[in-house]
Parts: sequence; C-alpha cells; structure tokens
Amino acid sequence: MQYADRLENALSRVQNPCLVGLDPHPDSLPEEFAAARAEGATRSERARAMGDFCCEIVDLAAGKVAAVKPQSAFFELYGADGAREWERVVARAKQAGLIVIGDVKRGDIDSTAKAYARSYLEGLDARDRAHTCDAITINPYLGGDSIQPFLESCAKAEAGVYILVRTSNKDSKLFQEHGTPLLYQRVADMVAQWGSGLVGTCGLSSVGAVVGATHPRELTELRARMPQTPLLLPGYGAQGAGASDIVGGFLPGGRGALVNSSRGILFAYKQPQYAGQHWKDAARAALSAMTTEIRAALKLS
Amino acid sequence: MQYADRLENALSRVQNPCLVGLDPHPDSLPEEFAAARAEGATRSERARAMGDFCCEIVDLAAGKVAAVKPQSAFFELYGADGAREWERVVARAKQAGLIVIGDVKRGDIDSTAKAYARSYLEGLDARDRAHTCDAITINPYLGGDSIQPFLESCAKAEAGVYILVRTSNKDSKLFQEHGTPLLYQRVADMVAQWGSGLVGTCGLSSVGAVVGATHPRELTELRARMPQTPLLLPGYGAQGAGASDIVGGFLPGGRGALVNSSRGILFAYKQPQYAGQHWKDAARAALSAMTTEIRAALKLS
Repeated sequence: MQYADRLENALSRVQNPCLVGLDPHPDSLPEEFAAARAEGATRSERARAMGDFCCEIVDLAAGKVAAVKPQSAFFELYGADGAREWERVVARAKQAGLIVIGDVKRGDIDSTAKAYARSYLEGLDARDRAHTCDAITINPYLGGDSIQPFLESCAKAEAGVYILVRTSNKDSKLFQEHGTPLLYQRVADMVAQWGSGLVGTCGLSSVGAVVGATHPRELTELRARMPQTPLLLPGYGAQGAGASDIVGGFLPGGRGALVNSSRGILFAYKQPQYAGQHWKDAARAALSAMTTEIRAALKLS
Repeated sequence: MQYADRLENALSRVQNPCLVGLDPHPDSLPEEFAAARAEGATRSERARAMGDFCCEIVDLAAGKVAAVKPQSAFFELYGADGAREWERVVARAKQAGLIVIGDVKRGDIDSTAKAYARSYLEGLDARDRAHTCDAITINPYLGGDSIQPFLESCAKAEAGVYILVRTSNKDSKLFQEHGTPLLYQRVADMVAQWGSGLVGTCGLSSVGAVVGATHPRELTELRARMPQTPLLLPGYGAQGAGASDIVGGFLPGGRGALVNSSRGILFAYKQPQYAGQHWKDAARAALSAMTTEIRAALKLS
C-alpha cells in the first residue's frame, strides 16, 4: 500500500493530525535522563539515555497519534552510538504501530541521493528494514535530478518524502522568497508535479511538503497550489504558531496535513502550567491539550 | 589557527589543489572489498570492508594531497555500522595529516543546526575530537539563521564550512538559476558576507563555497563575486569537467580552490587506460595524472 494511503489509514484511526517530533535536546531532558549530558559518562551511556527518553515518548504517543518524527541531528550528536539509538527508536516506533518520518533533510547529487534513499527508505537489505523510515524530509536545493532517486525509492518501498518548501524559521525568507514567483512557490509547483506520479487511492500523494505553520497566510496559498500534497507543518507550540494558524494547511474534513510539536510535548514539564508534574504526565497532558485544540480548530469535534 | 590558514599551509606543503573524495559506492569497490556488497555478510562485515577500502585510499593519498572528502551517504547506507566506519576513516585521515572535509550537506533550523555543528565540527566532548571533521559541506536553503550556528562552531573549533552555491549536477539550474539575480548569485553574495568575519591571516575565509567545475563560465564569475572565499570544485573527472574547466575558480598562483575527484581516483582500475593494474596502482596513477594535469593547467610547474 502506498505511503499516502498508509498514512491516511493511520490518521483515520487516531482522528487527529498531530505529529510528535522526537528532538531530544540533551540540555532539556528530564533529570532521570541526565546521563545524556553528563561529561563523565561514556558516549555510549549518554546516547543510551537519550534513546531511552525517546522510547518513552514513543510509548506514550502510541495509539494517540499516527506518526512520530525523530530529528537526526540529536542522534548524530552521539556519533556511531547515536546511530545505534536512532535504529532502536525507529524500530520501537514501528513496532508500536507508529509511522516514522525521519527528519534528516538530506539532499545530494544523483548517485549519492540514491545511497541516502536506499539507506533511509529501502534499507541495505531485508534484515535492515526493521529500522528504515516510512518517510523522510529532503532538501530541494540541488534540483530535480537530486529528488528523482527518492521518488524511485518511494515507489519501490511504499515510502514517502516531505520536501522542504517553506521552513518555519525566522530567516527562511532569505532565499525562499527570492525571485518572481518566489522560490518557495516555484519549489511548491515542482513538488506538486513530482508527486503526481505517486498519488494513492486516498487522492493524496506520497510526495509531501514541509511548510512552516509560522506562515499562516502562505499556508493557505500553498495548500491551493499543491492540492494533492500532504503537508508537514512544523512551528506549532515552542516555535510560536497556534491552532488557528494551521487551519489553512488542511483540506476539508481535517485531511492532508500533519501538525508537528516537539519541544512543546517532550519538555512540557518545564512549562509553568505543568509545574510539579512528572515529565511523563506533563507530556501526556500537553499532547492531549494539543490534540483537543487542533481538533477544535479544525471543527472535528 | 583558523581553518583557512591550516588549509593554506597544508596546500603549500603538497603544492597541488587536489582533493580526494571518499565515495565508496559498494558496487564499484575492487574485488577484495566485495564483502561490502555481499548480501550474505553481516552489516558490520559489509561496513568494515567499505571502511577498509577508504582507509587504504587515505593511506595512499597521505602526503600527496592536502585533504580528503568522505561522503556521508555511503557510510549511512550501513546505518550504525557505517557511522562507526565513518569515525574510523576520519580519525585515520587526521592521523595521516590530512584535512578532512565531511561531505554531509546538512542544514536545519537554528537549534537543530547547532546540534549538527557540534556533532561534526566541535565534537560531543574532548574525547570525541579524534573524529570531528576539519570542515563540512552545508546547504543554504533554510537561510541565514540556519547558517549562523555553523559559523559559531567554525570560530570556536577552528573549523570551516563549504556552503552549496552552484552544484555540479545537470539539473542544478532548476532552482539555483531562479530569479534575478540568479539564486546561486544571491547565495554567493551571502556566503562572501558570512565569511567576512572568519578571514585568516592568509587572506582567505574559513567559510567556503561549493561550485561545480561543470560550470566553467560561472566559476570565473563566482570567483570574482567571492574574492576571499575558498572554493570546493566537484565535477572533475567522472562528472565530466577537465583541467581547463577549473582554472577560473582559482586566484593567482593557484590559490583559493580545491578540485575534487572521487570515482576517477577510487575506481581508476575500471578505466581502460589502467586495465590490468592492481586497483591501488591504478588509483595512485590516476591521482598522479590528475595532479600533473591540474598543476599544468594552473601553470604551477
């Protein structure tokens, strides 16, 4: 079954479009995972503490959301030990029935892109498939021939990609608003085109786009520009976007987009409204609050 | 000592601007490393064969060139086992006195970019520094605030970055030629500006640019546009650019650029002119031929 259809099915089971981002900033981890930042511990111990935290988040997200999005950078921080934990966390999430969107933002020339696509979407061999991702994020700067190998892997492995179109950070305008049409509009048009060959029976493509929820007006415009493209919307919560900001990214019935929150869920225990709660209760409460808020904004309840 | 100055010193020792790219395509590895592509072998064995090959290339490049450029994708193909080999190869190259430019093409929003910068340029802690890179390649699509953390790590760790400006692949024009000025020109102007705070005593910056040697006219234009920026020129050899194509990327005296060749050196044994030679002799001969050809084109001999 195509990625687009698998995602659609998973979303209809949980009845909410929330995506939990696994961004284990070492300095923000709860005290019981402090080994992750302990200079005295071995790198392997530090990585394991970070991975343990992510597995706990996976367990509490399972059944509540359709997907998680591990952020590669925080695993790469621990080198080969972090890569081992990446595989453990991805496998754990897949076992728990979650779709895994690897936030790796890779991009390179053809033969190299092929190696990345194989690594993250197909796996080196059959044994490796326990920890390939269902989808990954990729960067379009290098052009169409750098995207093609990922599309081929999507077709072969029933996987998906989310191509960076308009990122959530403050200075994303620097190059993304360059030219006429604006660069991000041009990229959006190409994303729609690249995705046209990978449309599932649900009517959406397995080729998605990353559009920051921090740009609500552009979100509406980009939704119209890419009618069959599933969107991944970062920026909700810690980065400043609220539930009303994400509405424009959706198709009728609350379909066609995932809203990501990372720090807002993982480190909820640091927020004043969850003061005194165990980090896990705080994370659960924050995820529940996000779900309720977004369902309300989308008029799903 | 700033990265720019370290590189300049290393280049003046070897008297040539050749850069050996470590792109260990499993299907092209010589027969004695065939375990890398053997489905019957464990992933760890496969990764080790790939790493062994890279270490052999490192050893034969040491003393002949200033730097090597391992390509992350081919290591990531082997997951955590590949990450272990990445660290082994990087450490081996540094021990051999080579400068290591990690071809990772990372790029993400601020806090995530910081994790990548720490991982590849600073190291998690002091013990980790044996296998950090001297410089890495990064992708500019996300804008200035995604570049800033890398610049900070460059200052702190005496490291460098090479920002993608104009890539060597055929379809690089798709987005890189978008708008007026062309996007790659706009990126080049920003690279020059970002680098102005990290200029070494040699007069060049530690903030470099990737410009494909497959675009010779643009190379001359970009050299003028970024007068203090060290260039990394991929595309020579297997990708089609010859020695005359790279001349425009240089400052007088053959300074200010590195010319990369990966497959042309690593897999020289597959070329008709080296038929019958051991792969290592072929690689040595190809590197020697490249060095001679480029020194001649730059009128260094």
